[in-house]
Amino acid sequence: MEQRLTNSKRRLGLIGFGAFGQLAAGALARDFAIVAHDPNPAARMAMHRLAVTPAPLETVAASPIVVIAAPVSAFGQIAAAIAPHLPPGALVCDVGSVKMAPAAILDAALPGHVRIVATHPLFGPQSARDGVAGRKIALCPLRGASARPVERFLARRLGLDVIVTTPEQHDRELAVVQGLTHLVARAITELGPPQTRMTTLSYERLMEAVAMVRDDAPEVFAAIERDNPFAADVRAAFLDRLTVLSAANRDQRRAAGSDCAQSQ
Amino acid sequence: MEQRLTNSKRRLGLIGFGAFGQLAAGALARDFAIVAHDPNPAARMAMHRLAVTPAPLETVAASPIVVIAAPVSAFGQIAAAIAPHLPPGALVCDVGSVKMAPAAILDAALPGHVRIVATHPLFGPQSARDGVAGRKIALCPLRGASARPVERFLARRLGLDVIVTTPEQHDRELAVVQGLTHLVARAITELGPPQTRMTTLSYERLMEAVAMVRDDAPEVFAAIERDNPFAADVRAAFLDRLTVLSAANRDQRRAAGSDCAQSQ
Repeated sequence: MEQRLTNSKRRLGLIGFGAFGQLAAGALARDFAIVAHDPNPAARMAMHRLAVTPAPLETVAASPIVVIAAPVSAFGQIAAAIAPHLPPGALVCDVGSVKMAPAAILDAALPGHVRIVATHPLFGPQSARDGVAGRKIALCPLRGASARPVERFLARRLGLDVIVTTPEQHDRELAVVQGLTHLVARAITELGPPQTRMTTLSYERLMEAVAMVRDDAPEVFAAIERDNPFAADVRAAFLDRLTVLSAANRDQRRAAGSDCAQSQ
Repeated sequence: MEQRLTNSKRRLGLIGFGAFGQLAAGALARDFAIVAHDPNPAARMAMHRLAVTPAPLETVAASPIVVIAAPVSAFGQIAAAIAPHLPPGALVCDVGSVKMAPAAILDAALPGHVRIVATHPLFGPQSARDGVAGRKIALCPLRGASARPVERFLARRLGLDVIVTTPEQHDRELAVVQGLTHLVARAITELGPPQTRMTTLSYERLMEAVAMVRDDAPEVFAAIERDNPFAADVRAAFLDRLTVLSAANRDQRRAAGSDCAQSQ
């Protein structure tokens, strides 16, 4: 597949041209003639700026490869809208931050002749601002025999570290990896601006993590925390540990009394 | 002061030879003849390994410069024990992770002829494993005119970024910087081993922060969370944000029903 891809530019339809759609377009432009659809005016301007051809949804869906880079909450609507227009044997990929729900939606809504490979690029505009090479991507083969060529293209042509997994295993691990990180980042951001004067190296690392995800679209946070079926349990366990630790310190402080903790 | 320090090795008494005392001894050995006291057998072995002279507490306290590198909870006992042995005009410094409680204890317990400069090196064995130069240290001038020479020594001789502040301002800022970081790190550590396969860059940064403080002595965590009078409020505000965010995602998931979030 990668030979064909690199010798002639096949058309690739991109549905959704937000922050990640734009990143994907940049990474894929060398190998594909990209047509994109996004009703958002800011997204249309971004297409113009990045020389990506805007097109109606039906035209984009009629491509041999279709990549859905839209919020997970829109997947049902998008899958139903593109289903009648997909050409026989088309390859449909998504880039959502969860995999179980999108996999189920695409499998249920897309015609039997369509091949489906679900992916989750484990990076974003912040963490891949120096390029996507070396970054990780999770890949779930769902339907058809297209996963291996896609895997080879991502690994050899884009330089990505491809992790082949199942939607459930993905969502279990990412409930920790993204569920914890984005929750902590959001809560810390809401507490106010970061300290910059008396900082420790560990606090600086923590704030680097916060800065990387702070500006993610609200839909990304929703997908990670709301649409991942394992995220609620991870949050609950984390909150439980924090509550116990916090209470233990409060009790110790009371027990210490005027000894040293409250001596001033 | 730094001229004298570098021309002849003055005696420096180090009270406490745990992880940070050992780090301090390494950084100060070029300029001082260090005698140390720590009743812990492991600490005595570390002194032998680092060629630092062990001595009784009275001998260590009889030095012109005394550095207390012990848990904050032991400060009252240590201050009372060393007070009668400190020579006239002795300089006493501490390196505790909070500053209000130690400042009050030292000021109350040490004789009037003793000069006091409280410090908080904003690094530890993990974050300063490549050396202390370039790292930050908070410095609170408490009593006597010794703060400026100490500041110059720390900046010019050790290459530290010295931040002069008050105990209260220090504790207010560090309640966020260390209070949040150590609480998050402890809670995440208790959840289990870190994910290593499908990781994002932001999660990796978060886990770097965790790894830097994970092995700190329990006394360090206690000082940061229990002995800092502002830490409880920071923890409460953080827990409140987390609880609100967690509940909002749970409610949204319920509202979404079988739409997409629970479609598999």
